[in-house]
Amino acid sequence: MKKIKISLDAMGGDHAPEIVVEGATEAKTRYPDIDFIFFGNKDVLYPLIDSKHNLSDSEIVHTMEFIKPNDKPSNVIRRGTNTSMALAIKSVKNQSSAMVSAGNTGALMAFSKLFLKTISGINRPAIAACFPTKRGEVCMLDLGANIECDKNNLIQFALMGQAFARIVIGIKNPKVSLLNIGEEEIKGLSYIQEASEILKNLSKIINYCGYVEGDRITDGLVDVIVTDGFTGNIALKTAEGISSFFTNSLKESLKKSIFSKLGYFLAKKSLEGFRAHMDPRKYNGAVFLGLNGVVVKSHGGTDSFGFANAIGVAYDMAKYNFIEDLKKKLSTTTKYLI
Amino acid sequence: MKKIKISLDAMGGDHAPEIVVEGATEAKTRYPDIDFIFFGNKDVLYPLIDSKHNLSDSEIVHTMEFIKPNDKPSNVIRRGTNTSMALAIKSVKNQSSAMVSAGNTGALMAFSKLFLKTISGINRPAIAACFPTKRGEVCMLDLGANIECDKNNLIQFALMGQAFARIVIGIKNPKVSLLNIGEEEIKGLSYIQEASEILKNLSKIINYCGYVEGDRITDGLVDVIVTDGFTGNIALKTAEGISSFFTNSLKESLKKSIFSKLGYFLAKKSLEGFRAHMDPRKYNGAVFLGLNGVVVKSHGGTDSFGFANAIGVAYDMAKYNFIEDLKKKLSTTTKYLI
Repeated sequence: MKKIKISLDAMGGDHAPEIVVEGATEAKTRYPDIDFIFFGNKDVLYPLIDSKHNLSDSEIVHTMEFIKPNDKPSNVIRRGTNTSMALAIKSVKNQSSAMVSAGNTGALMAFSKLFLKTISGINRPAIAACFPTKRGEVCMLDLGANIECDKNNLIQFALMGQAFARIVIGIKNPKVSLLNIGEEEIKGLSYIQEASEILKNLSKIINYCGYVEGDRITDGLVDVIVTDGFTGNIALKTAEGISSFFTNSLKESLKKSIFSKLGYFLAKKSLEGFRAHMDPRKYNGAVFLGLNGVVVKSHGGTDSFGFANAIGVAYDMAKYNFIEDLKKKLSTTTKYLI
Repeated sequence: MKKIKISLDAMGGDHAPEIVVEGATEAKTRYPDIDFIFFGNKDVLYPLIDSKHNLSDSEIVHTMEFIKPNDKPSNVIRRGTNTSMALAIKSVKNQSSAMVSAGNTGALMAFSKLFLKTISGINRPAIAACFPTKRGEVCMLDLGANIECDKNNLIQFALMGQAFARIVIGIKNPKVSLLNIGEEEIKGLSYIQEASEILKNLSKIINYCGYVEGDRITDGLVDVIVTDGFTGNIALKTAEGISSFFTNSLKESLKKSIFSKLGYFLAKKSLEGFRAHMDPRKYNGAVFLGLNGVVVKSHGGTDSFGFANAIGVAYDMAKYNFIEDLKKKLSTTTKYLI
């Protein structure tokens, strides 16, 4: 069995390194063909890893340095090249097929760009992730890497999102849309309209379905939603805020009377199905697309189940050759781009 | 008792004119000091109004023309000046204190700008509305009138939002924030950072509290959230989409088994409290701020309860002199603006 080797920044995230090791052992149970390289303090890591029987094949690369949550990207690039995060990213070049970190997003992006560089044909990497919808999942990008974009960025994001949805969600010919404030052609900002025109002409290589509005993101009628990083980040966080507001208000309401408490008890199993469908941990793992290497960002505060899911995303992308697939698509597309 | 006169576009919206008349009678029950002018087809309107005993003081201004949902703003301005919507807006100048329409948003904005003009000191009107939060309500603007903004637009929106929250939500010294993708000063687009710097210097006239991210919109920690119309529209619609996704998934889950159905029955009263708190009809009524007249846009598909709430917003703004209040504030602020 050919092994998929994944590098883990063992020191990144709110509950590192415990959750990283716990998540790795959960992921290994799901995908026995993974092997891990843990980057971090060996004195802390060794006993944690040693207690997990299925992690006995893992390697540890020792470092005492790590990135703090508030470190500025510009500073870490100068001073942080021996941190667990930086070493894990560097290792993707020749020791492993992907890396996962729950650490500082800005630093992770800065190191990724520095060490892995963007794929030829991609000007800027984008952050992508999957979300639940009324039917299946949707992949959305950019979620915050590029706060100002032009039409070419959007088209590159569309191509990257298409390849991502194919490999991670498993959809053969993903439907791709641009996020906009209306469905008519005249709506929205001019660079979005220009990107839309170009995408229409790329119908042989991309299944472009026009604009989609914010209220249709969770409809599941399209598989990939493309937007600039500012708007994507606002939409993502607004959705997170509303979800938590809803969940909390619902909990409060169900605690209100003896009847509602009993009602909750009876409906518990069904409500758990509802919760499982919405569980943000299931969708943990935002990917930096467009680099010469697979880098997955886990939510900083996630638990081992969430971290294992982020590893699962990295595993899929490595195993099913995301980068090769994207490169092939790009080589046939470049001539259409301006 | 001094009456507040409100003009209604009786022919705008998916269920006009029935819902408009029903909504008016509900609003009149809540605020007996309102009088209405209905603009529309008198042959249809007269019997409807005549059947409501509390609308007997109403006037009808007859017209057979009305704006269709898909009419383009540029066309309606040329050909639609005798429509129920246009006549109702014109009447705000000298016959009434405010107008409400559930019709075509683009046409409503175009006519409002044409007939009412913006207040001196305001370059562009903005669309504002209130939403439920974990504690109280929040007012957000712009929700889609201006897809590209500069720093001065944002500052004007902040001043308008402050006056709006004071009058419609009833908060003495509303906390105002700019929507951004991080809380640190260096985050986001440069014109947002510039607006933030200016707002900090306006601390004597505006209670500015820095940036707020998308996931904090519903926290209720600030009272006014300012953004450009593109981002505001995406955030608003994303929130609507997630809310409906949540509500539908919850309903489906509760129907799944006999236990969950029984559970739902027992918890029904508490869940209704939850639903009431989230009810979008309660927050119906988006306001076009910055004009020399109060114009309120109701959701096109709302029912009479929702339409009555939109009338309630118009009533508050007319009764508590929103426009005079804003003008006063602007006159003391102009010197700080660049």
